[in-house]
Amino acid sequence: MNATLHNDRLLRALLRQPVDATPVWLMRQAGRYLPEYRAARARAGSFMALCQTPEWACEVTLQPLARFPLDAAILFSDILTVPDAMGLGLTFSDGEGPQFARPLRSAADIARLAVPDPEAALRYVMDAVRLIRRELAGRVPLIGFAGSPWTLATYMVEGGSSKDYHRIKGLLYDQPGLLHRLLEVTAQAVTLYLNAQIAAGAQAVMIFDTWGGILTPRAYREFSLRYMAQIVAGLTREAENRAVPVILFTKGGGAWLEAIAATGCDAVGVDWTVDLGEVRRRIGTQVALQGNLDPAVLYAAPERIREQVAQVLADFGTGPGHVFNLGHGVQPGVDPERVGTLVAAVHELSASQPPHGDA
Amino acid sequence: MNATLHNDRLLRALLRQPVDATPVWLMRQAGRYLPEYRAARARAGSFMALCQTPEWACEVTLQPLARFPLDAAILFSDILTVPDAMGLGLTFSDGEGPQFARPLRSAADIARLAVPDPEAALRYVMDAVRLIRRELAGRVPLIGFAGSPWTLATYMVEGGSSKDYHRIKGLLYDQPGLLHRLLEVTAQAVTLYLNAQIAAGAQAVMIFDTWGGILTPRAYREFSLRYMAQIVAGLTREAENRAVPVILFTKGGGAWLEAIAATGCDAVGVDWTVDLGEVRRRIGTQVALQGNLDPAVLYAAPERIREQVAQVLADFGTGPGHVFNLGHGVQPGVDPERVGTLVAAVHELSASQPPHGDA
Repeated sequence: MNATLHNDRLLRALLRQPVDATPVWLMRQAGRYLPEYRAARARAGSFMALCQTPEWACEVTLQPLARFPLDAAILFSDILTVPDAMGLGLTFSDGEGPQFARPLRSAADIARLAVPDPEAALRYVMDAVRLIRRELAGRVPLIGFAGSPWTLATYMVEGGSSKDYHRIKGLLYDQPGLLHRLLEVTAQAVTLYLNAQIAAGAQAVMIFDTWGGILTPRAYREFSLRYMAQIVAGLTREAENRAVPVILFTKGGGAWLEAIAATGCDAVGVDWTVDLGEVRRRIGTQVALQGNLDPAVLYAAPERIREQVAQVLADFGTGPGHVFNLGHGVQPGVDPERVGTLVAAVHELSASQPPHGDA
Repeated sequence: MNATLHNDRLLRALLRQPVDATPVWLMRQAGRYLPEYRAARARAGSFMALCQTPEWACEVTLQPLARFPLDAAILFSDILTVPDAMGLGLTFSDGEGPQFARPLRSAADIARLAVPDPEAALRYVMDAVRLIRRELAGRVPLIGFAGSPWTLATYMVEGGSSKDYHRIKGLLYDQPGLLHRLLEVTAQAVTLYLNAQIAAGAQAVMIFDTWGGILTPRAYREFSLRYMAQIVAGLTREAENRAVPVILFTKGGGAWLEAIAATGCDAVGVDWTVDLGEVRRRIGTQVALQGNLDPAVLYAAPERIREQVAQVLADFGTGPGHVFNLGHGVQPGVDPERVGTLVAAVHELSASQPPHGDA
């Protein structure tokens, strides 16, 4: 593997080192808002085929980089590949979202869960990581990712998306010991999975805790944060003679950012419901921050997008440690040109020396 | 109207006066989890018929009080009756949620909005309030309610429920002046509507800001909180020689409770993602707090429900100013017996003198 990295802004910012301009990448930067993505998905036949075929996953990962000067690629995959590898049988139906053929319905279902070997059951992900690294050829770093144990458990127990989280919350309040067993085995699986991604070439990793925000503060600490901290402690933090930064992101976790920052991660993802300046005042300089533009700003006119980008940059203020991102993924209805406006605005407005001398 | 009120725990707690036991009522205490509600809805033919027929609205309002020793009734209605009265044409389709026949799609649509006379266009609500007060005969107080201007505007602009709030966020970022005009007329409509409810007999009122939590902190202050504060300033605060307390509730607004408390309201609703003890440390004693049990606790076993009720009571701590509630509405799948467990636990565990000497 070639360790030369031509654009290291992302890795530097995640480690709170100075950069010439704020790095930017977007959650779901490869996705349905891009016509070339929709075409690839149609040709691949299904969302799972995109994920499970390294050539498709690589092609889709690189699509947004061909359009926009993004500072990172993120592996195209899904957080639910891990429970799928644990035997739950994942499918995606159009409009219905993810579905498990064998959701966890009993203590016996949970007792029989085992930690999958990522180079076997999830070999297709590692092959995709290796292929993407080869194709990137050091242009920008590649981010690997996984779901948090709590977030994965919600899907594994509910069987898919849920409106009221009836089953998982029932488990949490009635049988917390059983839920801990599920979270423990899932945390081990995620740790191995992320370390395998790092060994295959992921240069930073991010843990998505999409559903941590539906918990009480007490339950968040006990059932979500604790297992993310355990994963952070078990990760390979250096590869190719370079630090591999870890980003934690709990959507709706604005009240708990101090605790998230204290896990030992390098950076904390922040949704748009908190002000980055206030977050810095609260948690100081121990971690970098990633975020936090309202994803809906991408529906606005270009001039408004530039204003809102400027606002987020001003909220963060000066000093190192900011990775620009949305507070959540790019929405499918967004015009790709607006993403281009955003990326250009971040670089131009944050550059200590304007890149082309004309800003 | 008979001003005798046999159980004034709710009003006393909202005004931070001492009570013999913590009052409890539940958002959506009249609703689909009750078989008698489902039967009434089937007989009425539609959700709108329940809302628009004072006898039905009264019957459904009183249903949970026949089962549980709740400390308040809340008017059975829907926040979207106000935009309906403004001419948008509301219907509810099963499983699809609310739909407006004439959503706001242009500046002209917004320009032509007028403030409806609540005793004309919303007469059915006032008649329901008068009938419920008569039927309650002073047993417990009746709470009136309305949606916040921001929350109403999201439905008026989107045309119904939304996944990504594309249209309303587009309006917010691209045409804030137009959105302010919409919020201004809606705030005036809500003020008149709540004052009419108070004149008809509502003894406390609550403003539901269901979608304030999807905003950035800046946008929340400008587009949601500001208009709720304007309504609070315009409300009749005394009727029948008694104070009429005002409760504000922004779901997902945990980060902004200080600002909500500073509007001049009497009480702040708190969802389950914040700890009531921490909230008290943050905002002091200027307002009462209403909340904040995780609604999913009602899926747990009775002993667990009692434990979680005890936890919320302990989080709040001693002193006046707590109205027990869920952090959001009762979910349709809940067993009514569990609601009975909750109500009994609140009274028993909070009573300064156990009501039957056996606790």
